[in-house]
Parts: sequence; C-alpha cells; structure tokens
Amino acid sequence: MRFGANYTPRRGWFHHWLDFDPAEQREDFETLAGLGLDHVRVFCLWPLFQPQRGLIRQRALDDLARLYDVAAGAGLDVTVDVLQGHLSSFEFYPSWTVTHHQRNIFTDPDVVEAEAELVAAVAHRLRDHGNQLGVSLANEPNNMIAPVGRDAVTEAEVDAWITRLLTAATEADPDHPHTHSAFDAVWYDEGHTFTPRQLTTLGARTVVHPWVFSAGIGKKYGGLSTEAAHVAEYVVELARAWAPDPARSIWVQEIGAPAGSVTPEQAPEFAEQTVRNLARCEGGVGCYLVVQPRCLAHDAGLPRAGVQPRPVRRARPTEAGRRASARCRRGAEAQPVAGRDSLDSGCAGRG
Amino acid sequence: MRFGANYTPRRGWFHHWLDFDPAEQREDFETLAGLGLDHVRVFCLWPLFQPQRGLIRQRALDDLARLYDVAAGAGLDVTVDVLQGHLSSFEFYPSWTVTHHQRNIFTDPDVVEAEAELVAAVAHRLRDHGNQLGVSLANEPNNMIAPVGRDAVTEAEVDAWITRLLTAATEADPDHPHTHSAFDAVWYDEGHTFTPRQLTTLGARTVVHPWVFSAGIGKKYGGLSTEAAHVAEYVVELARAWAPDPARSIWVQEIGAPAGSVTPEQAPEFAEQTVRNLARCEGGVGCYLVVQPRCLAHDAGLPRAGVQPRPVRRARPTEAGRRASARCRRGAEAQPVAGRDSLDSGCAGRG
Repeated sequence: MRFGANYTPRRGWFHHWLDFDPAEQREDFETLAGLGLDHVRVFCLWPLFQPQRGLIRQRALDDLARLYDVAAGAGLDVTVDVLQGHLSSFEFYPSWTVTHHQRNIFTDPDVVEAEAELVAAVAHRLRDHGNQLGVSLANEPNNMIAPVGRDAVTEAEVDAWITRLLTAATEADPDHPHTHSAFDAVWYDEGHTFTPRQLTTLGARTVVHPWVFSAGIGKKYGGLSTEAAHVAEYVVELARAWAPDPARSIWVQEIGAPAGSVTPEQAPEFAEQTVRNLARCEGGVGCYLVVQPRCLAHDAGLPRAGVQPRPVRRARPTEAGRRASARCRRGAEAQPVAGRDSLDSGCAGRG
Repeated sequence: MRFGANYTPRRGWFHHWLDFDPAEQREDFETLAGLGLDHVRVFCLWPLFQPQRGLIRQRALDDLARLYDVAAGAGLDVTVDVLQGHLSSFEFYPSWTVTHHQRNIFTDPDVVEAEAELVAAVAHRLRDHGNQLGVSLANEPNNMIAPVGRDAVTEAEVDAWITRLLTAATEADPDHPHTHSAFDAVWYDEGHTFTPRQLTTLGARTVVHPWVFSAGIGKKYGGLSTEAAHVAEYVVELARAWAPDPARSIWVQEIGAPAGSVTPEQAPEFAEQTVRNLARCEGGVGCYLVVQPRCLAHDAGLPRAGVQPRPVRRARPTEAGRRASARCRRGAEAQPVAGRDSLDSGCAGRG
C-alpha cells in the first residue's frame, strides 16, 4: 500500500524547473515525508523539457534525476508525468506547436514522434533510479482536446496516441509500470474520445481522478452529501466494471476536496468519509489521506512562498481509516498514489 | 555611427536562457566583436521572464544583467527587446495568456499592467549598466495581432499599448532612448492597426525593419533587382516622409538577405548594394554589413551547435562601402543598429 501526493513546490509553483533548487525541494520533501507520505508525483513542463521539436534539454533531464535523488534522500519514491501540457487549468504548449507552427499534438506524426522521444528520454533517464515508480504520459491530456481544448481527435486517434507513447516508455524502461490518465469526462461525457476502454485496457494500471467537482456533484449535493462522499468509490467500481480483466489494478491517482465543492470546514470529514467508502470497495481498497502545501493563488496568478500545511492537512488517518488501511495491506498489491492542489487525498485500489 | 547584430546564440537558439552559460556567450560575443560589431540586440523570452502574471523571475533579470556584463567584456554595447512574443515565426505566449486564461495581450488591463511591470523591471535593472543602449518593447509585436496573429486590436488600442509600455520604460530609466518596432505591414498594408504614425512619433526613434521578403519584393523582382536593392533606402525615406519631425532619428534595426528572396550567391552583392543605396539617403545614412552565425534549422526545429560564420558572413565592407561608411560617420549621430537571422545587415540612418 502506497500513499503520496502531487508535488507542487511551495516556491515557484511548477515553474520551479526554471529556478531549480534541490535545497528547497529537500525542505518540501521532508515536510511531505513528515506527513507520512512515501512518494510524490512530479510534473515536467513540456516547453522547458523540449523547447524545440528536436531539442530535449539535457539539463532538464539532469534536474529531474536530481529531484529523484533528493526525494530518495527524504525516503520518497517518485512517479513522473511527462507531457504537461495541462496543470491546474493552465496549458503549456511549446512554441513549435502554436500559431504559425500549430499542429495537432495528438495526431501530427512529427509532433507525436517528438513526444515519444521525450517520453522515452525521461523513462530511460530514470529507469535505474531505485525510487522510480513509473512514468505517466501526461496529466489529464483530455483537457487539451476539442471542444474543451484545442485539438480535435477521434477515439481511434487517441488509441494510437496513447499506444505510441506507452510503447516508447516501455521500450525505454521495461521494468516499471507506465500509465496514462484522463479527467472524469471519460466516465461522464457521451462522445468524449478519451474513453473508459482506453483507461481500463491501456497501460499498466487503470488510473482514475475522481474529483468531486466533476459533473458538479459537490456543488449540487453538498460537500458532505452521500453523493459527494461516494464519488471516489463510485468511479473505482465503475472502472472495475469496465475493465475486461477484473483483477486489473486501479490507481486512484488524484482525489481532493476542492474549494467550491467542499468547504474548508467540511474537508476533514469529507476526506475521512471518502477514505472509508473507498475502503469498502470490493476486493479491498487501501486509502490514506495525503496532503500538500497549496502554493498557487489562481486568481492572482501568484505563487505564494512560505505557506505551511494547514492544520487540516496534518490530519492523520482516524483509527477506522487505519484499520481499513491495514485491511487493504493484507489484500492489496503496493500501488503508487498521488493527490493534487488544495486538500488532496490519494488512494490505492486493487480489483 | 554604430554597427551591431541581433544576438542569436549558436547553442540553444533563444532558448539559451534555459541553459544560461556566460562562457558560451563570451565566445559568441568575441566572434561578433571580431567581425567589427560594437553592439548586439538581445531578446528576452516572455514566458521565461514572467511565467505567471505576478511573477517576474529575479534570476532571469540577473542572467540578463550578466549577459550585459559579458558583452561589455567583449567591448559590446547591448539593446534589449523585452516581450517576445514573436521571434522568427515562433510565438511565445505565457501560459497565463492562453486557453482557459486567454486574454488579449494588447488590451486586457491586467495583462498590459503585467507587461508594463516587466518592461519596467528590465529597464530598471539595466539602467546603470554602462553598455546599455535602451529598451525596445518587443520584436515586431504586430505579428501577434489579428488577422496574422491572435488578438484583434484597433489603432487607438495599439496607441494606448505602446504609450503605456514606453511610459513604463521611461519612468524606470529616463536616461536611455526606448523604442518600439513593427514588421513592414505598417508601411504596406492598408488597415493595419500598427501604423506609420506610431512608428514615426512614439518612442525615442523611428525603428524600421525593411526586409526584402516583405510584399514579396525579392521573389518578384529578384535578389539583385533595383527593387530589392533599394528596399531599405525606400523604407527609410518613407519613414522620414511620415515623420512630423524631419530630423527624427531613423534606426534601421533589421535588414537581411533571407533565403528565398536572395540566393546565397547574391547575398554579398545584395548587401553591398543595400549599403550603398542607404548611404545615399538624404541627410546621410551610415551603414555597415553585420553578420551573425545562423543557428536554427527552422525545418527541423533543431538548434545547431558549433556552426561557424560562413565565408559570406565574414565579408567586410568593400572599399566603396568603407568610403560610404566614413562619409556617414561625418554626418550622422551615433545610433544603435541590429540585424537578424541568416545574413543580416544593420544600418543607422538619421534624418
């Protein structure tokens, strides 16, 4: 059973690659490890790692490898998402994919080949790191497809894109489980071309991001409603039902208590209920509340330095949660888990 | 009389900010100084200097100041364009101005205020550098207006944008001449909202980029045609005619012999004729052929390391050119000059 969080650096947000500072990371990682986490999920910024189609920056790979080493020093394993791409409502397109050079990032052969090269370079660079958990292609790339995002793609084209990039990762590093992710439109939106079939058949695990704001659940029913507290459990069971292989691993990679859906006062109770409900999933689901410092004031576009975890974020699992977790440990394979912005929860499920 | 070139780093193209290396710059600058140049024009990358609306990276400013110091060590003065923005067909939009955060970069009050802060920060940081020549707002920002680019703007809105940013530069550094630039559509396209009036009245000088590919002149008439060899002279006289003040300085900031308009074999002769013709401009125009290593293979998107100036780029002014240049030195005020990609020429004109 694994517990982790999305790593959002307190200083510099995901722009921290521009001012890479292992000392700051060490501080952040020790804080996270002190909260009981055993791993983090980190995010490359595509334009910084591959600023031209044919240029993968060696120093970016070096910095990523150093980050792995710093995490190892704090006792943390790491999983990395490569093609960002999309992060917390912001999109990072390399200049060679926009305006006069605009090409569909899912279907243009040259662009996809470049993406495959970057995925392979990252996977290859990290394959011998003892704390590598695997590569994820991109954080919720379906945010970047039309009509929500820019590029129109068919389901078959998404199939080809995921398959090409997973092949690149696996060829570069056959020894770790590589995955892909998507936001909840996969489950809720008819006609969406990222599909349940892709999530439940491609890659080493089924990855889910069951956010309570999806489909307006939290707002509609309330942060502590039956509907909100069962979202994660619901999506896990939905994913299990879709999977041709009922024993396929399910990775609850992101859950959280976003403001607007769950009030700060409701967050601890929401988190505990979510964990309890996930723990009841058939076959055993291990859960653990994981948290991270919030560092981005979206409205101002201002990274905030020096923000410490709030009390609610220091919450440890209740006794019930601990029992549930222990129950899962017996039955469940170890799984990487991660959360994201704001109050985050991560759960590792296994069918 | 001043002679310079756009500084395109041989390694890393304009992405060099990501792997800032004063040693490489020193080598480049000594090469350029060895060709007889006395200054360079350098280009910030907007998303790297201001990755969030409220975040101007201190280290980016530090690196820029270090670049000025390295240039000073090679005997070069420097002029800097801030909001790139547009460079050689590539556009660099910060993530906070695209997709879900898309705002018009010329008219949105918050965006323009952030731009003004960056322009001011750059101007302020460099004001005490002995080799500062002044700040230019952005390289040809009219590439980024509709219908060529993304954001629709009226002439009045462009007026306000240029004025706001020039004010920011001047308030931060009243001691140097600050300017703005635009590509040739200003002169040739009816209805274009960057206008001759703006170029010839706003900022410390009239800045022109008389490229031979504009309006298809080189292709239509040939690289050594009367029409092609007189383009720069023509635009200088056009700018002088538009200026309410006939004595206003005219800065020929970019000219060149682009492939597709001028063959490599024609380039030296084209350059010499361009210089001779500019030298005939009324009131005296000083010219000097300036060159820089070409480092970007656009087609492949690949920066090429280790490229040395080609023989044609080592061409020194002919005796006639030298005479013309000497003639100008007598009559013309010293002006910063810069060239750009490929074979580049720079000329300082004065009305």
